[in-house]
Amino acid sequence: MKKIVVIGATGTLGRAVSAELKARHEVIEVGATRGQYQVDSTDPASVERLFRELGKVDGVVTTIGKVHFGPLPQMSIEQFWVGLRDKLMGQINVVLAGQNYVNDGGSFTLTSGILADEPIREGANATTVNLALEGFVRGAAIELPRGIRINVVSPTVLSESMEGYAPYFRGFEPVTAQRAAQAYLRSVEGAQTGRVYRVGD
Amino acid sequence: MKKIVVIGATGTLGRAVSAELKARHEVIEVGATRGQYQVDSTDPASVERLFRELGKVDGVVTTIGKVHFGPLPQMSIEQFWVGLRDKLMGQINVVLAGQNYVNDGGSFTLTSGILADEPIREGANATTVNLALEGFVRGAAIELPRGIRINVVSPTVLSESMEGYAPYFRGFEPVTAQRAAQAYLRSVEGAQTGRVYRVGD
Repeated sequence: MKKIVVIGATGTLGRAVSAELKARHEVIEVGATRGQYQVDSTDPASVERLFRELGKVDGVVTTIGKVHFGPLPQMSIEQFWVGLRDKLMGQINVVLAGQNYVNDGGSFTLTSGILADEPIREGANATTVNLALEGFVRGAAIELPRGIRINVVSPTVLSESMEGYAPYFRGFEPVTAQRAAQAYLRSVEGAQTGRVYRVGD
Repeated sequence: MKKIVVIGATGTLGRAVSAELKARHEVIEVGATRGQYQVDSTDPASVERLFRELGKVDGVVTTIGKVHFGPLPQMSIEQFWVGLRDKLMGQINVVLAGQNYVNDGGSFTLTSGILADEPIREGANATTVNLALEGFVRGAAIELPRGIRINVVSPTVLSESMEGYAPYFRGFEPVTAQRAAQAYLRSVEGAQTGRVYRVGD
């Protein structure tokens, strides 16, 4: 039984990941405004405070992150920063602060997404951020101390979110959050590091 | 004969790219503090001013960008931001502002680097930023208007820079800046878009 923090546990994907992990582990559910604990992952001080409160953990899962969707010819630089500040640095803040609180042999599991591989109209910010996260995991995997592992899950669009996103994702076969959650189990309970676990498509 | 702006033209790589392009094109050399024109590419207002001064161009090449090198366990969040602000957003600022100044069928050619594929110790910031740039190009290629193309060149370590960087790059075969410059010609004078041109290793 491991002690696993799920940051983003109140979202569609995070809820599914937490539910699956709970079968065998102690799960601490963290949200932005709900959950057992709250964190603003874009604020390094808030992230540090969360880990100080939680103490040592065996695994950290992040299923968070906003990106900006909009046409590139009209995209402002400020809009482009949204994904960098939120989905990218939100998750990297968690790793940089959290590495001191993860037990030997523990793990980080981050979230990128299908747009890393399959660009769509209005998705340049998402594609950038998702590949950046895969780069971060590739770089961090060879440097994390004490056998700490790091992986990233790249799910395709979720069935639960398809209603709002369908026009962007014609021809993409959605997966349920429950199915996407399996990849997080492979990362948390497996032994690999530096991996991208792609789910769907 | 095309009108090509090289941003970073006073650096080792930019000088070589400019020299090669000059054989057939009008080249405008832009530096941070030297060159025919100056720009602070991290400052959107400065980038906009540059393009207003230059008017319409056929191609934009960027060979710029600082990243932070240092061990991940001690890396501060502020240090991690260095590469995002400079190498990543410096080049993206150029595309977001420059797309209005590039003629139909023109091109952008950005610069990532070998660490996208080959992580090294102390290089997590570079690996993140380089893959982010490759993601940006993948996303932007399908959205740029009027047949404007965008590619990225990923060179390995340059012979000219090997002296300072050698301890980080044991076993990497360096290439000359003049050889790396050929990939920029392929992007500027070719017809592909959304490509990563890898040079070396």
